[in-house]
Amino acid sequence: MSDDDHAGHGHEILKDVLKILEEYECFDVTSDQPIVRFVHPDQLVKDFPSNLDEEGVPQNEVKRIASLIVQYSVRTFSPHFHNQLYAGIDIYGLAGAWLTEALNTSQYTYEVAPVFTLLEREIIKRSLELVGYPALPEADGLLAPGGSMSNMYGIVLARYKRFPEIKTKGMSVVPPLAIFTSEDGHYSMTKGAHWLGIGTDNVYKIRVNELGQMDVDDLKEKIHQARNKGCEPFFVNATAGSTVLAAFDPIDKIADVCEEHDIWLHVDGCLGGTLLLSHQYRNRLKGVERSNSISWNPHKMLGAPFQCSIFLTKGTNALHEANCANAKYLFQQDKFYDVSWDTGDKSVQCGRKPDALKFWLMWKARGTAGLRKSVDIAMDCANYFYEQIKDRPDFRLVLPEYEGSNICFWYIPPSMQGQEENEEWKNKLNRIAPTIKEKLIKVGSLMIGYTPLPSKNMPNFFRMVVSCQPPPNHSSMDFVINNIVEHGCKL
Amino acid sequence: MSDDDHAGHGHEILKDVLKILEEYECFDVTSDQPIVRFVHPDQLVKDFPSNLDEEGVPQNEVKRIASLIVQYSVRTFSPHFHNQLYAGIDIYGLAGAWLTEALNTSQYTYEVAPVFTLLEREIIKRSLELVGYPALPEADGLLAPGGSMSNMYGIVLARYKRFPEIKTKGMSVVPPLAIFTSEDGHYSMTKGAHWLGIGTDNVYKIRVNELGQMDVDDLKEKIHQARNKGCEPFFVNATAGSTVLAAFDPIDKIADVCEEHDIWLHVDGCLGGTLLLSHQYRNRLKGVERSNSISWNPHKMLGAPFQCSIFLTKGTNALHEANCANAKYLFQQDKFYDVSWDTGDKSVQCGRKPDALKFWLMWKARGTAGLRKSVDIAMDCANYFYEQIKDRPDFRLVLPEYEGSNICFWYIPPSMQGQEENEEWKNKLNRIAPTIKEKLIKVGSLMIGYTPLPSKNMPNFFRMVVSCQPPPNHSSMDFVINNIVEHGCKL
Repeated sequence: MSDDDHAGHGHEILKDVLKILEEYECFDVTSDQPIVRFVHPDQLVKDFPSNLDEEGVPQNEVKRIASLIVQYSVRTFSPHFHNQLYAGIDIYGLAGAWLTEALNTSQYTYEVAPVFTLLEREIIKRSLELVGYPALPEADGLLAPGGSMSNMYGIVLARYKRFPEIKTKGMSVVPPLAIFTSEDGHYSMTKGAHWLGIGTDNVYKIRVNELGQMDVDDLKEKIHQARNKGCEPFFVNATAGSTVLAAFDPIDKIADVCEEHDIWLHVDGCLGGTLLLSHQYRNRLKGVERSNSISWNPHKMLGAPFQCSIFLTKGTNALHEANCANAKYLFQQDKFYDVSWDTGDKSVQCGRKPDALKFWLMWKARGTAGLRKSVDIAMDCANYFYEQIKDRPDFRLVLPEYEGSNICFWYIPPSMQGQEENEEWKNKLNRIAPTIKEKLIKVGSLMIGYTPLPSKNMPNFFRMVVSCQPPPNHSSMDFVINNIVEHGCKL
Repeated sequence: MSDDDHAGHGHEILKDVLKILEEYECFDVTSDQPIVRFVHPDQLVKDFPSNLDEEGVPQNEVKRIASLIVQYSVRTFSPHFHNQLYAGIDIYGLAGAWLTEALNTSQYTYEVAPVFTLLEREIIKRSLELVGYPALPEADGLLAPGGSMSNMYGIVLARYKRFPEIKTKGMSVVPPLAIFTSEDGHYSMTKGAHWLGIGTDNVYKIRVNELGQMDVDDLKEKIHQARNKGCEPFFVNATAGSTVLAAFDPIDKIADVCEEHDIWLHVDGCLGGTLLLSHQYRNRLKGVERSNSISWNPHKMLGAPFQCSIFLTKGTNALHEANCANAKYLFQQDKFYDVSWDTGDKSVQCGRKPDALKFWLMWKARGTAGLRKSVDIAMDCANYFYEQIKDRPDFRLVLPEYEGSNICFWYIPPSMQGQEENEEWKNKLNRIAPTIKEKLIKVGSLMIGYTPLPSKNMPNFFRMVVSCQPPPNHSSMDFVINNIVEHGCKL
């Protein structure tokens, strides 16, 4: 290793990275590379030189290792990756991500992040418009490290508004607080309740109806129950796009309840917020503009690079007042520029990764029209997928209809059709999805998730997630159906 | 915009990004490009096409915008950037960051992040060795989105150990809890106390001595005071490398107190943890192996890409038990591989950005020896800087000596030397650093931070931060001194 190399002058390795990604056809959606070359963890430990040693390795070895990293990683950018709520990424988003990494800075002050600050503000501004919130500064927002953190921002702001003294005195000076979320809502409510000192027992899980939507009568009932137990209801989370079923809680009706009881309404739109871009589907979130805060992850359905999570809230200075600590070494008020552009004291983080630029760059390149079209294409493909399987004897839908782009279904092999569906049958069905999934991963053709349903005692089913990137089409939908049949029909 | 373009096939824009970074000499430490082309926010709004519109822009316009992004951004990778606790990045770290972005995945399961999971484990393993903690699984860790979050992990784990019922019941069932940290400790303790429901009034700020180190007698006294007020002392934060002075609290002595009172000892080593790599300087953290948890940010002094923050804790399954929510849709126990490799339920986050690979790749390339050498070089340069200014009439040190690589000092222009140092003089001195800084930014030669001191009523002084990347040398130290004199001598 030469001194020059050590000084970081040479950036050949960056060219190598690009070349390796090209060699593995990472930018080619027609590539027939396996979606994953799966090896068990114990085998990967043997195959991959993960050990860090006293001495380093030369650049050609770094290059070989970079190849191995790509080789053994999951091709989430494949058109056949439907395993998570995120998938491929927009190429302009990736360009923005690479710029962000190369420019290595923190979002906290305009001084060290002028462009990032400007572009985060534009993203917040446009997102507020999408949601139908008031404009800056009557509403505000920031990008947070993931949806769980965004949801925690919502809880903290709601709590600060109801009991500002908690900031200084802690939660021992107030009655127990109660959070309400549907039984299909994301577990970040539970984890948030733990971290924030509210307690997971004080998260009231509201029943969902047959479509996975919050039952508003049960919400009213549980608010009543919480009050009777001496708890203070302060926060309702309405889920817009639940994790498994992509169901949308009836925000408008929930907002009525929250107004009546003076409770903060937060919308977890991490998944479903993307539908706000679509003229055709934005009514799934009808009433969203009445909420107090919302989380939206463009890194999910929309295909912004992971991670990109937006938190928005109504209220001038609401974020700053709740979270500020006025650290003088960082947020000097005697700087020579307008320090109202420094965003750092709105955040619970100190250093904050600039996640806005990558989303901004893809939005700039595609335009709102381009993003909207990509959402409509994904929804069209989800609808197509639904239509293809709904009347087949070997597929059975978990819900009669779907509001989002997750289509959940069981595959019923011919050997299991036309039988009594008793416990034994259900136990057998419970193993079908995991077995097919294992085969699919081992041949490397397709990745699709399976899950039981949190709110019901249902056996494992597939959750087909249709995302905007890479743009799906009817043929990529057929591919999923055919692959599942191929690997499941003899079970 | 063609359909092909929209499908994200073409990745020309990635080549453009690399070319733009080359054109702006971003990888050349000898470049004479200005460190920042500063424009005020209102001007940047005019100069930069930040508006997002209905229609997108063609690729050549995206390329032009990418150039503007680089042009208006701060060159944190310049040898003359000393403005924050992070600075330039190791080129192999950047290569790892680009790979991470291109492979777009989440750290939560082995299934979607096999290589990232393996390499995070290796980073945790080696970091535990560095600190002197037990090996996996008797100790554990994860990478968190920044030091504030890592410090919050420490508080949550300490709280869970003392009062596990808080997870389910919330903080209203226990007495007020007390946190202890020095008055120079990072504000994440305050923000964490707010978020976690402890309350900022229950953060006891311990006096520091003339070197900025926690006064252990005052710690004992404040523990006593807290108990007398009915608070439960449960968490002491020892700072290893304070934000301004890079002072190191006496961990060994603090550990004695914590053992005596059965209090969790956390070490905020976000800045100073890097010295553990150095044989010569690791004794700054003497006793660190006695702590219960530690935070360390390789993205600070060491030059890993932002963000890279490591949280470590003793205790088998401690992270999992405190944070798990057992979400069945994500952490299925009936998978076909060993699910003990799935790290997601240890985290308060759901999706978690894989921050380990970039640090792993630079460590692999440099070896522990290479990283150690880079730390020793940075410390040598900080010592050189100190020696150069300590006897000069126009420079005055804030401390008589420094333990870390932050050197804090006032510049005293000739016009202010030999005068009575009354309030008026101090008010004048308070404006010197901001004035020089403004000049330096406007000519674009150097970026260096200034601050008052949280614990004392001291006027603004410069905080010179010496980092490992790009590797500093004596000449880059002289550059700072000469620039300050040049722009300050006539004030």
